[in-house]
Amino acid sequence: LDLQSAMADPIITLTTDFGEGSSYVAAMKGVILDINAAARIVDLSHQIPPQDLRYTAFFLASAIPYFPFGAIHVVVVDPGVGTERAILHVEVNGHRLLVPDNGCWTTLACEPAPRVIRLTEPRYWREPVSATFHGRDVCAPVAGHLSLGLDPAKLGSVANDWVRLSLPSPRREANSVYGEVLFVDRFGNLITNIPAAQLPPPTQPFGVQIGNVEVTRRVQSYGQAEPAALVALVSSAGLLEIAINQGNAADRLAIGVGAPVRVRSSE
Amino acid sequence: LDLQSAMADPIITLTTDFGEGSSYVAAMKGVILDINAAARIVDLSHQIPPQDLRYTAFFLASAIPYFPFGAIHVVVVDPGVGTERAILHVEVNGHRLLVPDNGCWTTLACEPAPRVIRLTEPRYWREPVSATFHGRDVCAPVAGHLSLGLDPAKLGSVANDWVRLSLPSPRREANSVYGEVLFVDRFGNLITNIPAAQLPPPTQPFGVQIGNVEVTRRVQSYGQAEPAALVALVSSAGLLEIAINQGNAADRLAIGVGAPVRVRSSE
Amino acid sequence: LDLQSAMADPIITLTTDFGEGSSYVAAMKGVILDINAAARIVDLSHQIPPQDLRYTAFFLASAIPYFPFGAIHVVVVDPGVGTERAILHVEVNGHRLLVPDNGCWTTLACEPAPRVIRLTEPRYWREPVSATFHGRDVCAPVAGHLSLGLDPAKLGSVANDWVRLSLPSPRREANSVYGEVLFVDRFGNLITNIPAAQLPPPTQPFGVQIGNVEVTRRVQSYGQAEPAALVALVSSAGLLEIAINQGNAADRLAIGVGAPVRVRSSE
Repeated sequence: LDLQSAMADPIITLTTDFGEGSSYVAAMKGVILDINAAARIVDLSHQIPPQDLRYTAFFLASAIPYFPFGAIHVVVVDPGVGTERAILHVEVNGHRLLVPDNGCWTTLACEPAPRVIRLTEPRYWREPVSATFHGRDVCAPVAGHLSLGLDPAKLGSVANDWVRLSLPSPRREANSVYGEVLFVDRFGNLITNIPAAQLPPPTQPFGVQIGNVEVTRRVQSYGQAEPAALVALVSSAGLLEIAINQGNAADRLAIGVGAPVRVRSSE
Repeated sequence: LDLQSAMADPIITLTTDFGEGSSYVAAMKGVILDINAAARIVDLSHQIPPQDLRYTAFFLASAIPYFPFGAIHVVVVDPGVGTERAILHVEVNGHRLLVPDNGCWTTLACEPAPRVIRLTEPRYWREPVSATFHGRDVCAPVAGHLSLGLDPAKLGSVANDWVRLSLPSPRREANSVYGEVLFVDRFGNLITNIPAAQLPPPTQPFGVQIGNVEVTRRVQSYGQAEPAALVALVSSAGLLEIAINQGNAADRLAIGVGAPVRVRSSE
Repeated sequence: LDLQSAMADPIITLTTDFGEGSSYVAAMKGVILDINAAARIVDLSHQIPPQDLRYTAFFLASAIPYFPFGAIHVVVVDPGVGTERAILHVEVNGHRLLVPDNGCWTTLACEPAPRVIRLTEPRYWREPVSATFHGRDVCAPVAGHLSLGLDPAKLGSVANDWVRLSLPSPRREANSVYGEVLFVDRFGNLITNIPAAQLPPPTQPFGVQIGNVEVTRRVQSYGQAEPAALVALVSSAGLLEIAINQGNAADRLAIGVGAPVRVRSSE
């Protein structure tokens, strides 16, 4: 941390599947601010599809790396709430998260090895802890205390094992790369799991099979095509993306997350 | 207030029915920050169903108690805008609200007696005040001035009467408790108005009649049941809740707010 | 700027069409805070309809004027991303915006003449700049640097020409004013482009033709009519508005943005 960041009020981000405007989110904000009135809460998303860990993994990988290291990222997508699953304090690539042990954070690049603490110290939790809302009763108060400078080592004991979750990997076979749609954004752009490095060189003709169509037009950005043209490009996250300039590819092709994608190099 | 809270920039929360991303909300934020650029605005919800005072009452009771006392809570759900209804500054249980006199705040526990001021002093309002947007023209500027330290007594005169609104109470009869669904969260969990204290002891068999089904499975948390099981539990707010582990009870039972609920003790 | 505003942490507002809870918004917040951890980010809207510049223009005109002059307003509604369209730093009526050169800001009243700089200095951008996400790669880092006090003159060169966009103007003919619906709010209120000054005096009878009906009831505020009554009034932005007290005029009349409206003076 540089001096400026060190002096700024601490940042706590929230990522949940509670839905926009949920009283659950409001309660978490209250708990945090009641412990540290100077904390600055930044909403990342409350629109994670309910209990969708894969979506969460993709979301976190798309957002967390841009933040300064000092921020505390609270993630509450928690299908296992009330079971024995732990809540973890994770330091990975310099970023800090409080997150249920369900693997949604493990797609953040993991070198060097993450430092993981399993929360066991109820002194920093609300009392009593409900069986259904650990976001309010565990994560929020712990985030508040961390933002006041609490040493994470006091939260519990070091963990050497945790749940891992990986996004589906593309697979190469002969002249083709097989992948799938990872994410559909609000514009209907289809972001796949095929990284730019696995595409043929831009100068070489290629085709992308997706839904019932083959996309052969490759551009750098939407605006290089005329409106309504179906194009392939490299997304802002460095992945193959299928899009329609000023249109909605997901609607037009009637496909969504999980749809198979095949990239063929020229023959 | 402790010293830290006293030194932190003041918190103003917003709860409205304007809808996410509304220019009405943006205008209110502008007015507040124009008066006190150091105010920290915290969005609680802009997704209150339009003009739904009962929902607002439940929302506020679920959120406000968690906040530190210093926060100023602005609530703009206001079916009576432009009529003679007053706007109130309320101190209740240490929390402060600016809220139209429509009763939505009166479900916050009220001991000791709330201190209520009826806003009459136009000096702290925008000029002119529109007939349809008191959130922007009265509530926002008053919140800005309060956040600068204005004494609430200067806002108007003490009120001894105000509109009251109460949530429906459960009713006990023979071996049954009759209540209703108060709230449906994003997961489709059905939160009723029956407090845990009115349920039979956990060891005793019981049944909940709701929609066309009887729920007899009682758990502490969703994860204690297998996926898709319909269960009864005590919600994070201490109320009887009907839920489906990793599923949507509201969709499955096709019922919503207001649906009757009957709890039968074992016979 | 007064002293207080000058000392408060700098405000950066965000207006986008990325959708609530989008990872694109989260990434922009991260980039801003990574450059200036003390920046205070205020969400204005992420619900602008995709690539809808006219809606954006109306939104900005409804929101920006209320903000203090020091705020930096980042607007990312950008159908031309990746083409040659520029990104501009605009100072208009004391307000500062970072916005693609698509005209959406030009409905903010423009006297005295705006000062416009075309961003050309990649030193303040992320490296490399993607072809599809200038919000993250250009606007967010530039906003971060500006919030640290960077002189806007360093961002590029002065521009004397830019894209202009105007909202449709009402037209007067004989005893009628012809306009259209500009905006529908969450309550279904229909805000037209006819300013109050073009309406007959309140004492004079008049009629508004809209959809299949004629509205003859004129009120100051919704609450002056009984519930479900269809009324005409002057909106909080000073424009003719058609509304239903405690109801939804857009649904009832089955019309939306662009619907023609005719105001007839009494004959």
